[in-house]
Amino acid sequence: MSWPERADEYAPGLRFRAEIHEQPAALRRLLTHDAEFALVASVLRERGSLVRMVGHGSSDNAATYGVYAFGVLAGATALRDSIALTVYFDANFDMSGSTVLGLSQSGRTPDVIEYLSRARRRGAFTVAITNDPSSELAQVAEAVLPLEAGPELAVAATKTYLNQVAALALLAAHVGDDGRRIADGMKGVSERLEEALPVLEAQANAVALPFAYVGRMFVIGRGPEFATARETALKLLETCRTAASPLTATDLAHGPLAVLDPLFPVWTIASRDGTLSAVREAAARVRGFGSAIVACGDAADTIDGADYLLPVPSPAIPLLSPLLSVVPGQLFAAALARVKGFDPDRPRGLTKVTLAQ
Amino acid sequence: MSWPERADEYAPGLRFRAEIHEQPAALRRLLTHDAEFALVASVLRERGSLVRMVGHGSSDNAATYGVYAFGVLAGATALRDSIALTVYFDANFDMSGSTVLGLSQSGRTPDVIEYLSRARRRGAFTVAITNDPSSELAQVAEAVLPLEAGPELAVAATKTYLNQVAALALLAAHVGDDGRRIADGMKGVSERLEEALPVLEAQANAVALPFAYVGRMFVIGRGPEFATARETALKLLETCRTAASPLTATDLAHGPLAVLDPLFPVWTIASRDGTLSAVREAAARVRGFGSAIVACGDAADTIDGADYLLPVPSPAIPLLSPLLSVVPGQLFAAALARVKGFDPDRPRGLTKVTLAQ
Repeated sequence: MSWPERADEYAPGLRFRAEIHEQPAALRRLLTHDAEFALVASVLRERGSLVRMVGHGSSDNAATYGVYAFGVLAGATALRDSIALTVYFDANFDMSGSTVLGLSQSGRTPDVIEYLSRARRRGAFTVAITNDPSSELAQVAEAVLPLEAGPELAVAATKTYLNQVAALALLAAHVGDDGRRIADGMKGVSERLEEALPVLEAQANAVALPFAYVGRMFVIGRGPEFATARETALKLLETCRTAASPLTATDLAHGPLAVLDPLFPVWTIASRDGTLSAVREAAARVRGFGSAIVACGDAADTIDGADYLLPVPSPAIPLLSPLLSVVPGQLFAAALARVKGFDPDRPRGLTKVTLAQ
Repeated sequence: MSWPERADEYAPGLRFRAEIHEQPAALRRLLTHDAEFALVASVLRERGSLVRMVGHGSSDNAATYGVYAFGVLAGATALRDSIALTVYFDANFDMSGSTVLGLSQSGRTPDVIEYLSRARRRGAFTVAITNDPSSELAQVAEAVLPLEAGPELAVAATKTYLNQVAALALLAAHVGDDGRRIADGMKGVSERLEEALPVLEAQANAVALPFAYVGRMFVIGRGPEFATARETALKLLETCRTAASPLTATDLAHGPLAVLDPLFPVWTIASRDGTLSAVREAAARVRGFGSAIVACGDAADTIDGADYLLPVPSPAIPLLSPLLSVVPGQLFAAALARVKGFDPDRPRGLTKVTLAQ
């Protein structure tokens, strides 16, 4: 498949869709930087095994995955650190013993840059993970890991999100001396995704139409797939103007359940990992309220009574499932935006680089 | 004001409203346990200054505040830890050097209990913060801090949330040798809140009516007030069936903004701290979409063009503002539930103790 590059060939959603389809290739490009990830991992082990991740939007969603990647692959504690505490409250942390990962596609997010500058002065090992290795974020950091996703032109992130997730997994794997296995697993993911994309797109297109009048949704996942839930909800918000909220499968039962009714569908991410029973239990509660259920992921077929199924291939390594399970959400968002007449390449009110305080 | 205790005097929302009004007294009861907080703080300093907080629903919202309390008052890193990583993935962390705070009103939340048991075996100093010091959570922990909020009968938490926030501030303050000042500040908060409650309730009642047909809302805050944003959104979800999503003021600009329109109001928490300029900037972006703005907090009057104001008194110590700024949201939820004919004491599908996986 090839895509026009000239602006006069532009059609709404063309870039968004093209970038979704580029993801297997983008993932393989990231893997060519394996040696750089191994090097940064070796410094991380020396300088600080408490991993502080910072980013906004899709970057912060990827960081949700990072918590699991570092925990499972490296036995290390990774946290989505508060940017405000360091930038606005100037909290006086000793950050020696910490590694900071600044996540920003553009490398231009103001408070992420400011956070990294301060963290570096406080003794942290600072790493920029960015699609622009010449960006200001890259300049303030001690080390740079390129996302190598290629130019991302649609405002809503897709391939840069996928490569952020992959970058965190690869780095964590090298910290845990497991880089080879994870890199091989990712190569396999890129192949399975490439092969599955046409079918995934046809399925997403078929499911999107009934959602044209849906105003609100929940997206639930747990563990590493909570990252997928957050990212899927964000795609629906920004490209389809659907008020989608991400929730962990368990938090759903702690209050939000009460809001459900048959006009309030729930998107469920079900993957073959330790959290599946919690996700299935949550879906059963949802069903009790008569809400429509969309089941996505490699265990979509285990969600009893799901109204719509968007299954994905299983990765060889279960922890890599978020690289696959996010794609139906992206394709669904592209299809739903088209149905609603919105342009996912250029959602109103947004710009590619967000310079908000 | 006194409230009937017998079930045959029951009217919808009576308990929820009574418990909101009990908060100043509940806060003072917590402060009678000051010496226990000082003792636990001294052990925390010895055993582990990396603070891992776990809880669901309102308890997890309070933990959002804890990140700031420990950062600002004690220069310590506190994180809302992943429960799934330890319980479902059995990640092999060394938790010596960590203190774990298990937050649960009932002390019966299954995966919080399981997390604490495992954390204790891995060397963490484990502390239960619960309204029931005889609960299973209290039994598996090494130390117990009572919330002392008194029996909470409404399903939607109010006074236990407030006391969780206060408990985290008091513990962090003792870790930072600042217990006396913070305890005095809280006493002042309880007095200001008690005095302001009748006015706050009248204001909330006046604002609630136009929201009867609102299906979706954002609630934005930043820094410590992101806890308030999360808790306000949860009250609206569980008691009013309004699909309210919490967002940091900055994350709003990273995508979700695109969903706004004049039928999609935004509740803004504005307090006099370092994040105020970011919150004001976010509100200005919201205004560009024509959304109605509710401004709450002690800096509500600084939000340009706000349609509804719900100001609260300023605390003597700015970090304590979340103890005040959450109350208008609680009162608004009580009023809106009444307008919509719902019973906030017993939202459908929920029970007081959530035993979900």
